[in-house]
Amino acid sequence: MTTVKDSVHDHIEVEGVARALLDTPPVQRLRRISQLGTVGLVYPSANHTRFEHSLGVYHLADRALDHLGIEGQQAERVRAAALLHDIGHAPYSHNIETVLHRHTGKYHDDVSDLVGNGAIARRLAAHDLDPDRIAGLVAGEGELGQLVSGELDVDRMDYLVRDAHHTGVSYGSIDHERLIRELRFVDGTLVLDEGNVQSAESLLLARALMNPTVYQHHVARISKAMLRRGAERLIDSGAVDPDRLRRMDDHALLVTLRECDRTAETARRLDQRDLLKRAVWAELDSVPGAVLAADNEKRREMEREVAATAGVDPDGVVLDVPPEPEMAESTSRVLVNGQVRALGAQSTLVRALRAAQRDQWRLGVYASDTEAEQVGDAALQTLGLELEGTLVRDVRTGINTTLDEFE
Amino acid sequence: MTTVKDSVHDHIEVEGVARALLDTPPVQRLRRISQLGTVGLVYPSANHTRFEHSLGVYHLADRALDHLGIEGQQAERVRAAALLHDIGHAPYSHNIETVLHRHTGKYHDDVSDLVGNGAIARRLAAHDLDPDRIAGLVAGEGELGQLVSGELDVDRMDYLVRDAHHTGVSYGSIDHERLIRELRFVDGTLVLDEGNVQSAESLLLARALMNPTVYQHHVARISKAMLRRGAERLIDSGAVDPDRLRRMDDHALLVTLRECDRTAETARRLDQRDLLKRAVWAELDSVPGAVLAADNEKRREMEREVAATAGVDPDGVVLDVPPEPEMAESTSRVLVNGQVRALGAQSTLVRALRAAQRDQWRLGVYASDTEAEQVGDAALQTLGLELEGTLVRDVRTGINTTLDEFE
Amino acid sequence: MTTVKDSVHDHIEVEGVARALLDTPPVQRLRRISQLGTVGLVYPSANHTRFEHSLGVYHLADRALDHLGIEGQQAERVRAAALLHDIGHAPYSHNIETVLHRHTGKYHDDVSDLVGNGAIARRLAAHDLDPDRIAGLVAGEGELGQLVSGELDVDRMDYLVRDAHHTGVSYGSIDHERLIRELRFVDGTLVLDEGNVQSAESLLLARALMNPTVYQHHVARISKAMLRRGAERLIDSGAVDPDRLRRMDDHALLVTLRECDRTAETARRLDQRDLLKRAVWAELDSVPGAVLAADNEKRREMEREVAATAGVDPDGVVLDVPPEPEMAESTSRVLVNGQVRALGAQSTLVRALRAAQRDQWRLGVYASDTEAEQVGDAALQTLGLELEGTLVRDVRTGINTTLDEFE
Amino acid sequence: MTTVKDSVHDHIEVEGVARALLDTPPVQRLRRISQLGTVGLVYPSANHTRFEHSLGVYHLADRALDHLGIEGQQAERVRAAALLHDIGHAPYSHNIETVLHRHTGKYHDDVSDLVGNGAIARRLAAHDLDPDRIAGLVAGEGELGQLVSGELDVDRMDYLVRDAHHTGVSYGSIDHERLIRELRFVDGTLVLDEGNVQSAESLLLARALMNPTVYQHHVARISKAMLRRGAERLIDSGAVDPDRLRRMDDHALLVTLRECDRTAETARRLDQRDLLKRAVWAELDSVPGAVLAADNEKRREMEREVAATAGVDPDGVVLDVPPEPEMAESTSRVLVNGQVRALGAQSTLVRALRAAQRDQWRLGVYASDTEAEQVGDAALQTLGLELEGTLVRDVRTGINTTLDEFE
Repeated sequence: MTTVKDSVHDHIEVEGVARALLDTPPVQRLRRISQLGTVGLVYPSANHTRFEHSLGVYHLADRALDHLGIEGQQAERVRAAALLHDIGHAPYSHNIETVLHRHTGKYHDDVSDLVGNGAIARRLAAHDLDPDRIAGLVAGEGELGQLVSGELDVDRMDYLVRDAHHTGVSYGSIDHERLIRELRFVDGTLVLDEGNVQSAESLLLARALMNPTVYQHHVARISKAMLRRGAERLIDSGAVDPDRLRRMDDHALLVTLRECDRTAETARRLDQRDLLKRAVWAELDSVPGAVLAADNEKRREMEREVAATAGVDPDGVVLDVPPEPEMAESTSRVLVNGQVRALGAQSTLVRALRAAQRDQWRLGVYASDTEAEQVGDAALQTLGLELEGTLVRDVRTGINTTLDEFE
Repeated sequence: MTTVKDSVHDHIEVEGVARALLDTPPVQRLRRISQLGTVGLVYPSANHTRFEHSLGVYHLADRALDHLGIEGQQAERVRAAALLHDIGHAPYSHNIETVLHRHTGKYHDDVSDLVGNGAIARRLAAHDLDPDRIAGLVAGEGELGQLVSGELDVDRMDYLVRDAHHTGVSYGSIDHERLIRELRFVDGTLVLDEGNVQSAESLLLARALMNPTVYQHHVARISKAMLRRGAERLIDSGAVDPDRLRRMDDHALLVTLRECDRTAETARRLDQRDLLKRAVWAELDSVPGAVLAADNEKRREMEREVAATAGVDPDGVVLDVPPEPEMAESTSRVLVNGQVRALGAQSTLVRALRAAQRDQWRLGVYASDTEAEQVGDAALQTLGLELEGTLVRDVRTGINTTLDEFE
Repeated sequence: MTTVKDSVHDHIEVEGVARALLDTPPVQRLRRISQLGTVGLVYPSANHTRFEHSLGVYHLADRALDHLGIEGQQAERVRAAALLHDIGHAPYSHNIETVLHRHTGKYHDDVSDLVGNGAIARRLAAHDLDPDRIAGLVAGEGELGQLVSGELDVDRMDYLVRDAHHTGVSYGSIDHERLIRELRFVDGTLVLDEGNVQSAESLLLARALMNPTVYQHHVARISKAMLRRGAERLIDSGAVDPDRLRRMDDHALLVTLRECDRTAETARRLDQRDLLKRAVWAELDSVPGAVLAADNEKRREMEREVAATAGVDPDGVVLDVPPEPEMAESTSRVLVNGQVRALGAQSTLVRALRAAQRDQWRLGVYASDTEAEQVGDAALQTLGLELEGTLVRDVRTGINTTLDEFE
Repeated sequence: MTTVKDSVHDHIEVEGVARALLDTPPVQRLRRISQLGTVGLVYPSANHTRFEHSLGVYHLADRALDHLGIEGQQAERVRAAALLHDIGHAPYSHNIETVLHRHTGKYHDDVSDLVGNGAIARRLAAHDLDPDRIAGLVAGEGELGQLVSGELDVDRMDYLVRDAHHTGVSYGSIDHERLIRELRFVDGTLVLDEGNVQSAESLLLARALMNPTVYQHHVARISKAMLRRGAERLIDSGAVDPDRLRRMDDHALLVTLRECDRTAETARRLDQRDLLKRAVWAELDSVPGAVLAADNEKRREMEREVAATAGVDPDGVVLDVPPEPEMAESTSRVLVNGQVRALGAQSTLVRALRAAQRDQWRLGVYASDTEAEQVGDAALQTLGLELEGTLVRDVRTGINTTLDEFE
């Protein structure tokens, strides 16, 4: 057994198959994958990694299993899945995930190849565990998959608390101990026990507050869009194969961006925090359906059109259209008067959160400091945005403000 | 003015020259220099950087100046120096500093060239500040230099608290607010005001406890020695110029180590946490004076001798001899009954700490898992170590334990 | 100047008129008034007092004044009001406030007599401050009264964070630093600056989560109802004059309850945590308007009726009907696109919170362990409650559970 | 099972005999015994009680038992003892313990009568546990008694962390989790496992720093001495029987002091924080052996002599002579190279702490503000104190400073 000191959960005991898996290259690589990608450019203390998060998820899974009375190989499988659940992440975690999905067809939770080969496969075999079942749990399959990847999973419990600790934004400080103590299986469904509507609400509220403040902060979104664009160019220019890119770490991606001619300027901008600015920042209601519905190729086309109208370089415009909001957790199950109910059906607050998420959604068009104004005007016209109220733009004069206020 | 959210000091207001300096490449580079280098291999949450630390030091300097009633250009200079005090750090902070000093003659606090050129010089000029005086403050010169780099400096106050926060090891949790409130200048000397012998002691005790637990943890020392060895080989092989190496970031150094033939194996070991083990771990009294006195070249020779005796590859042995302990803070000044006294003279505890530091000192000889035993025996004989008691070795059988217990 | 160490705000500097007021008996008395009254029977760590809270409110007021650029006598008045804002509290803070209001016509924020006489009056005079204006600020009058007692006051900011710290329930951990930095006066109205809809929401969400978990926890409500009943009997029996009761501290009230024949049993129950149980716990929709509208006398009558129906002692039934929910903070003002708007009009979430509060409202009927069942049945019938779903009751067999689960 | 939310250990599960004991009057009484007595007059947040501390000690004992693999009735006995270990405390915990010992011959850890009678005895019997063995464990008897009351007991681990949390003084923040994980029995002796000399040191350092800053802060000592004097007078005047006084709570003692003529002024002073001041504050070396050796009666005589010399009321002088320092923890056992050693023999630091404790020791003579100067002069002469250096006195002019700086 090994004991690891963690700044969030204090002492974490790692034993059994998890102890054996800890040494493997795919797990150790997570030390060099930042948990929040470009959010560190907004919150300078947010340098935590997928490695410490994975240890945290393992730890909470272990406590949940203990609470639920699940033991033996079944429990070992869940513990292995918890520790391994993020090994499929590309550099900078979610930041370039959509790019890689377009090119490889895979998301980060597809870990079949990683668990089925090499050191991990050998160690799973030594513990009589089937890689496919582990990969299934990571993908949320089966009853116990709900614990690893579901509406009430321990992944979310760890990341909210950990992101709060490292950013300094307290909104994510949920009572994870309590949530775990109230987990229960009812007819194969993971639910929160009687009297916990509010505990479930607090989990959603924490996410709802962390979202705009941290995860979707505009500076994090701008730099993420820049990174995404850089990754696309690396692939398009043939500098890096998408499957190799998926397995790099943050360090290798950053150096590769610096070394490739087509991305060196993006790398410089990210390194020096000389970021693009918001030329347009528009609410959901003002965005035409055609823009929302456009696929990646169509969006690249729109960017070029905006650039042409504005009279700037075709590469000088970035269009950033997040998916329409959904709120998976609202299907969390709670036990109310002995019956399993969906939280969304039970809670006035949760229904309101859905609406609030739509209020918070923003389309962004980004351009360099000096071109943001003309790009903004061109975008309004070209994309057909109907803006009411004041237009938020980051156009500033004088020195280039690379550290924006944190919100 | 910009407000930055910090996980240690909460909100930090950055204004004046500091605001202007924040945007410069040398300061932004600190985002990619880890504060504790290889300590992250022991404490997985310790991924904080010199950037957030520099903001913290700036913040505490600002509070100290406010408390001491220092204003105007004099204060601006100290604030600039506080923010810039670490821009001279090489990748992985102190880890490869001795190597670079041998080759460039410079330590990290020599920042004249960085402040005298480029963006920093321009922004200092715009604020009518002389680069040389800033560099002088960073080097601890003059009355106010004591605040930036001295026995009672704000640098130490920030790093102890920050390292405690991020490692999870609480020993460093000093009362920095109180220390700052008790600072005073007496005849040009920075002292702690009447009644603060114990506050001063607490600062030293915190360091004394953090030292073996965090900064000198044997796993951190082993990986640091490996990194140092890697850096030496990069320079020796001509792969990287030492002056360029000094200005890289962690990302670039790691990728360079991977790409150079002579260091690829070291990079693999660090990436996969497949570290060398302790073949010998010896107390100060058991080490002959000749070993302590040997210079770097002489030590390389000793390593080769040990390797020959053990019958292993000449590169397979790492000898790690820390400098003999000193304790600069024991010369901290405190006011006792109206008189300035050195803490070491005043405090029974501080005198004891000096002795305790000698007790904690260890010479290390490291080798690969499979060769540690024979290397250990050869080292005892070749170096003339006189060991009493049990010999601590990390030789283990079976799986390669890459995550040792945290102490 | 005096520096006080606080477990929430660390160091608090007390100076000027506040320093002078700190010594006065009415302020020192707050050391013996618990902040949360009977909540300590649910959360054993919640033993904090109005004294430390008052220091915290003073501290936040001071920071807000500094941020808003308010100085001189105007600022001194606000600081005095902040420190004094709770001196009018009766023992156990809000717990017996309605009883005393019926008998004295005064609430805790009526502090005219306390500031206009004795030590406080003398010290205010020595600082050239008018007691009436201080009392006015405490009552929320005038522009600056909004800071001390309004929708965005520093009182709330302190108590949420402090109650979270001491109960261990993290929901209240708001970012008070940020809220204060965003305060602004627009045409005499205190508002949160542009871009802070979400900061304002977080304040309301914190309260919405703390309310049922902490402030309105059923065990706290039951014991509060018992204490209220005890206070009524003390007054009715002539044992204590209501005006004297208002000025007692927790210690004196508890001892008085023990020593009076009519309340000794209540005191014993509170001392030994041998509390009444819920005989009925009913949602707002199931309660007839007549019950909601009944005044105190009418409610006492209902209790006697229920007791008669149940065949228990007339004193054996406690009917606890909270006021219908309101949410004052929803009128908080925020600046949106340059215009002052009420938060309730701006925020989907806040509108939902209003509805959620109605969901959380409960009428309680309490009785002793052994009589709860028959009292419950009698209450349903007598009060005309229309219950759907499962009836929550605390009737248990076997040992008397005096420590209920914390929720 | 019951779960209690604690601000230090988060969730504490109480089950088995501990659950049954929780309801008993002697345990519930601990809710009204402050943990640190008069320390709250220095640190306003320090209002925690013996009740939450007892829950914490129970919790840590439970974890230690689990770690040590101790189960069944043996473990139940230790858990019961942990929860009950402080039920013998008088009001204000240790503050008046010496007075009561003189009159009753008993210290707080003598709990035989309380566990052998009433509700506790009945519940122990229902769980087949022998009261005498529980009382023995509380007194530190037997192998397992070391866990409850010994050099490495869980009592100390809880109070250091809890006192740090509630005072805001971080010095006590030890790594209790680690200490518990390293406990081991070797031949019936409780020791810290190999490699933990430093963990053991950190425990002692924490106490060494908390001692002068918190536990022996001069304001806490002065008010404690006043309280002690008050208790003596209550007993001497026959107002309260010492055995009854032992069983009171803080509330009852304070009200009793107010109501007795001979102590009303002391009560007023404590209530209003109108404390005595230091007339003398002398180091150990300056105090004649005769003063150190004097018993209580002899010291009362000395006070009267000093009062006579100073020309003040015979009751106007308080002489406060703490016992000479000892450091029980230095006999903590640690395992070094396979052998059990006393920490004091092993650690340079611990030996230094012993010396440092002597440095921190102070004799105090207290008197009212206006008489402190003449009482001080009289005391120097009468007691034969040989003071060197500056004499520390709290004599001030102008307003009566009732809140001294916290150190």
